[in-house]
Amino acid sequence: MIKINEHYTEIGNNYLFAEIARRVREYKETHPDKKVISLGIGDITRPIVPAVIEAIHKATEEMGKVESVRGYAPDAGYDFLIHAIVKNDFTDRGIQLNPDEVFVSDGAKSDTGNIGDILDRNNRVAITDPAYPVYVDTNKMTGRQIELLPCTPDNHFVPTFPKKTADVIYLCYPNNPTGTVLTKEQLKKWVDYALEHQSLILFDAAYEAFISQPDIPHSIYEIDGAKKCAIEFRSFSKTAGFTGMRAGYTVVPKELIAKTSKGEIVSLNALWKRRQSTKFNGTAYIVQRGAEAVYSSEGQKQIKETIAYYMENARIIQNALHDELGRTTFGGVNAPYIWVKTPDNMSSWEFFDLLLNKIQIVGTPGSGFGKAGEGFFRFTAFGNRENTREAIERMKKLMN
Amino acid sequence: MIKINEHYTEIGNNYLFAEIARRVREYKETHPDKKVISLGIGDITRPIVPAVIEAIHKATEEMGKVESVRGYAPDAGYDFLIHAIVKNDFTDRGIQLNPDEVFVSDGAKSDTGNIGDILDRNNRVAITDPAYPVYVDTNKMTGRQIELLPCTPDNHFVPTFPKKTADVIYLCYPNNPTGTVLTKEQLKKWVDYALEHQSLILFDAAYEAFISQPDIPHSIYEIDGAKKCAIEFRSFSKTAGFTGMRAGYTVVPKELIAKTSKGEIVSLNALWKRRQSTKFNGTAYIVQRGAEAVYSSEGQKQIKETIAYYMENARIIQNALHDELGRTTFGGVNAPYIWVKTPDNMSSWEFFDLLLNKIQIVGTPGSGFGKAGEGFFRFTAFGNRENTREAIERMKKLMN
Repeated sequence: MIKINEHYTEIGNNYLFAEIARRVREYKETHPDKKVISLGIGDITRPIVPAVIEAIHKATEEMGKVESVRGYAPDAGYDFLIHAIVKNDFTDRGIQLNPDEVFVSDGAKSDTGNIGDILDRNNRVAITDPAYPVYVDTNKMTGRQIELLPCTPDNHFVPTFPKKTADVIYLCYPNNPTGTVLTKEQLKKWVDYALEHQSLILFDAAYEAFISQPDIPHSIYEIDGAKKCAIEFRSFSKTAGFTGMRAGYTVVPKELIAKTSKGEIVSLNALWKRRQSTKFNGTAYIVQRGAEAVYSSEGQKQIKETIAYYMENARIIQNALHDELGRTTFGGVNAPYIWVKTPDNMSSWEFFDLLLNKIQIVGTPGSGFGKAGEGFFRFTAFGNRENTREAIERMKKLMN
Repeated sequence: MIKINEHYTEIGNNYLFAEIARRVREYKETHPDKKVISLGIGDITRPIVPAVIEAIHKATEEMGKVESVRGYAPDAGYDFLIHAIVKNDFTDRGIQLNPDEVFVSDGAKSDTGNIGDILDRNNRVAITDPAYPVYVDTNKMTGRQIELLPCTPDNHFVPTFPKKTADVIYLCYPNNPTGTVLTKEQLKKWVDYALEHQSLILFDAAYEAFISQPDIPHSIYEIDGAKKCAIEFRSFSKTAGFTGMRAGYTVVPKELIAKTSKGEIVSLNALWKRRQSTKFNGTAYIVQRGAEAVYSSEGQKQIKETIAYYMENARIIQNALHDELGRTTFGGVNAPYIWVKTPDNMSSWEFFDLLLNKIQIVGTPGSGFGKAGEGFFRFTAFGNRENTREAIERMKKLMN
């Protein structure tokens, strides 16, 4: 008789963003005349930049010709893309990586979700709270013990060490959903903790391109010793508008080792390589060519314009909520997210329903990211300018 | 301290095709003057057809414009593609499916690998031998007990029921690597077995487009009752040359249920939906538009030409090996694979090395697909005509 993974029955039925989408769809169906503006799911609205589009067209041409068609890609990605990644994202920041420490994938969500495959069920996991739901959900799916590390205004969103020693620690900086960051010094404390306890840090750097202030680390490998204790996830989704194009990568340094119960030394790089070569068949060639073009000089210029556009949205939202409406806000400086305290002690979902029903604005309930997110709400800067301004005007009318 | 998934240390270091690629790369490096012909990994050589290329260009255009850019795709795929799949692959064959029983993905390798996520470790698994390595490897990675079901000339490649009742059964027809098929009657016995024992059949139909004979089922849902016991995997890789483009889909019927240890009824469709919405972020829009174009009338005409091209290669290989060289061969009629007995009782890897070193032909050692594949060798029909003919000439010289 089939035996299902019963851990699935211990988690909610709906992935957070699926639940938001459902409520919005329902609202739209019953109110077809209303214009709903989303500052919610964190999806892009700017087009993919010309350098990338051009590269994809060119690669698509190649795929249509017998002399240049490409079949299976290398599981870990094409050399042309891996070399561009190593040079631009690491070497140029003073970090040395070998090409075979980089694994190209169809996005950071897959990788942060699948990384648990190579880890035993009996790891004690620490996850910041609030957090991107994938971390908690995927560990619950495996039945792992989780200790949440609250990040609130009280501790300036800097998590304190877990009560019980953690074997695996999820950190995401710049942070989704709070938009806050760690300085090098603050991140170093976590690297030191991991080295001391032989823990593994899973560092999600999907938003590093939005960092605007100095001394904020773009990669955990800027910290000495991090290669011995950290895996880093990167994404083209927000950096280059790839949410619908699907590309990201994961760095698993060769220095990262673990001991089996028999005392054997095992390389996590080798484990992840085996996982990917067994359960993944490479990222589409045309998408990898698009990702490569992100690193061209034209591509870099163009994506920086897009990022600046979104960060101006962030400034507008932040300005209105904080300066004009007197709300308590966080983020928006080194990240495209603004984390705001709900008014009148409303719960996050109450505020969600209020905004949707009264002024047709969609945001993300903070409690959807964890218990410590209750009473907060996340706005994203990924809307277009006109909608962002209109959303702000509607909020001013509602909350003033 | 990090605890790794130690089941990873119980499997070989190298995924079969990675090992072949390594040996070929080594040979090429030491023999740069030799022309190596691959009839090995089963990768396509024909270009992607014009209807698909055109659709991808068009979709790429859309992604470059603010009014038509698309962000996150629905996790399970866009309606336009799901509807094309349901109509063409099922309704037109008399099978009724709901759109939400179809989950579009980046390929059947990911899905056949990831499906284990929703199943408990304590399922007894039966897998035909030889088989696509992903089935055995991914179950070993989870530590499941596996019973292999030998498929050899002795049983005409029709597996017999496992000695101990299996909870989960992997079937792949048309078969990779043997190229053999099951008739409706033969497949019905497995459906009946699964219904009787409340087992789950994981049916890999990646090669259904190559079926040329009548009465060979293209989908397991052609068999009464299969919706209550089977998940089916489909791929665009071989059907439409998508090995480097990445698209496939998985059907999880809503009738497919299981009981938890507490007696609760659980829908496997809901579990897979939760898995995909948590650990996967949709297939690239431009790739889904390409897959949709496979179902257009132009697309269908064009891919059928490509399939006919490959099947003519199969006929040529089969003809030479069997009729001219007197080898014992199987497959090649309803599948792009020819399964051949090695000469002089050589082991599969001995024959691999002989072909590579003496005549620079790459095939796949049968033993790489399982113990029952020892002494066999797989050739694929995916080469180009010229290379296929040249490979045959070289083999004739070597083996005559």
